[in-house]
Amino acid sequence: MKDITEYQDLVEAQIEKLNTHPTDLSLYDPVSYILSLGGKRIRPVLTLIATDLFGGIVEDSFKSAIGIEMFHNFTLLHDDIMDEAPLRRGMPTVHEKWNINTAILSGDVMFVQAFVMVTSCKTKYLRDVLDLFNVTAIEVCEGQHLDMEFETREDVSIPEYIEMIKLKTSVLIGCSLKLGAILADANKEDANNLYDFGLYLGIAFQIQDDILDVYGDASLFGKQVGGDILANKKTYLLLKALENANTEQAKELQSWLNDNNNPQQKVKAVTTLFTDLNVKKQAEEMMWSYYDKAIESLKKINLPKDKFQYLLDFATNIMERVK
Amino acid sequence: MKDITEYQDLVEAQIEKLNTHPTDLSLYDPVSYILSLGGKRIRPVLTLIATDLFGGIVEDSFKSAIGIEMFHNFTLLHDDIMDEAPLRRGMPTVHEKWNINTAILSGDVMFVQAFVMVTSCKTKYLRDVLDLFNVTAIEVCEGQHLDMEFETREDVSIPEYIEMIKLKTSVLIGCSLKLGAILADANKEDANNLYDFGLYLGIAFQIQDDILDVYGDASLFGKQVGGDILANKKTYLLLKALENANTEQAKELQSWLNDNNNPQQKVKAVTTLFTDLNVKKQAEEMMWSYYDKAIESLKKINLPKDKFQYLLDFATNIMERVK
Repeated sequence: MKDITEYQDLVEAQIEKLNTHPTDLSLYDPVSYILSLGGKRIRPVLTLIATDLFGGIVEDSFKSAIGIEMFHNFTLLHDDIMDEAPLRRGMPTVHEKWNINTAILSGDVMFVQAFVMVTSCKTKYLRDVLDLFNVTAIEVCEGQHLDMEFETREDVSIPEYIEMIKLKTSVLIGCSLKLGAILADANKEDANNLYDFGLYLGIAFQIQDDILDVYGDASLFGKQVGGDILANKKTYLLLKALENANTEQAKELQSWLNDNNNPQQKVKAVTTLFTDLNVKKQAEEMMWSYYDKAIESLKKINLPKDKFQYLLDFATNIMERVK
Repeated sequence: MKDITEYQDLVEAQIEKLNTHPTDLSLYDPVSYILSLGGKRIRPVLTLIATDLFGGIVEDSFKSAIGIEMFHNFTLLHDDIMDEAPLRRGMPTVHEKWNINTAILSGDVMFVQAFVMVTSCKTKYLRDVLDLFNVTAIEVCEGQHLDMEFETREDVSIPEYIEMIKLKTSVLIGCSLKLGAILADANKEDANNLYDFGLYLGIAFQIQDDILDVYGDASLFGKQVGGDILANKKTYLLLKALENANTEQAKELQSWLNDNNNPQQKVKAVTTLFTDLNVKKQAEEMMWSYYDKAIESLKKINLPKDKFQYLLDFATNIMERVK
């Protein structure tokens, strides 16, 4: 097994070699652009790790791994239109740099390019790879749908929220790992347990993200702390706070939700309410419960000790962010 | 072989049985909606015909055939956003009935559903089917890109126009036929010649559409005659007219292109200019040249006489529209 950074370097080198521009049509400019914006490349890295875990040939998984990264970037491209996001990784989003029509159509072609890459595996793996990827792609669309729907709903429950983050982000983490397992001839049970490991770790990671958005150290977190509060985002923390609040607290919380004129005070007051309502602790408990599920799934996989330890360290490192 | 209407009935029955709504998420409402708007279902019909031609089991091709129709409808859904089209088959378009975000995301999930359906063939055909469909999907995106790009370009050439209609519409006709051939174990050469037959017939059909839009009988054509002229659409006729015009005629044509206030006079004057410039005849020649290429490809296919005749009659019937 290699260090995460080594896998990242391998992925980055592959992306640099990639011909995302098969013709000179400007249709492909946004594809090259969004892929050039970088990122941690965590999904293809997971595919390569999974291939390595089961003794597969990492190089044979490159194309499928990059396909997953392309699919992820396609979803970012379309999500950014829907969210009217001006920036992505500090750079203009595609619909801002070009226009909405370009973002729709370049996204569509990028989606097909992702399919081409993912399915350019050996034909003997094709059916399993395709079934996994198709289901995942559908679920990711469903997750984005729920996320948008929640914006206008006042009755989102915690289980619905967990279902949304599972579909929107975690299934693709599980898929990335299982893909690598399939390409390394892992048996079905191991591949499914590895999927579950990724799925649960993904949910834990997302809840952690909600916590860090409020309680994180801005310089380490890399995002504006309080961003979710300012956007009235229905995170685990807000939903739990609404659940826990007595009439008076609910009134106060609601009045801050309606206030868009005092950002600094809003972040401070809502954070204080969150703390008073014990939601940070409850969010952490929920996060650790999903972490525990991830580790339970990990233990079920038939792996030599050193490879088990590798994944355990990986999971622990991810959770280190809040410790 | 069955009558076209029988194949259409088979397709329609399959679409009615289709579970386009696998969960109760409203994400799937537009998918069910656009598929319910009807249409001639020509693409899946062609897949079934092709399967029948080579002695395949038509029922085994149902799912893949419907997948092609779903893909086609997905492209309509996204194209309608880009074209700001208010109506589709006389009914509100998805972005009008819902909103742009819904149209983007429901389109995306429909795209995946199309992949699932197309690739739910027997695994032994999977690689060939996937390679064909992936290439075609990419080409269709490229065609839509060119079509949009042409709107703002003043120097579109006839070969570029032919390339655009080939990518935007004809490759999917070729793909529909070749898909059926693959699923019926046809040999590669026959499958490719059948693809070419569809490709060239598709181009002929599209040029015919340009002609009918100007010279057709409104009651038979089913669209507003003169629509392309009013939209300044860069059809074969307009491009050829601009090519043929002398300075004075070019000036007159240009002044009508800039005039959006006198629709009736505009249609009449531009039609007269087209006739004076001999473009109807040239368009018909071009159309027949592609028809001839289609028949040449047809002749190369190893088919019993009655099946050859079936496809010949099909092609002739399509061309009958202008006769």
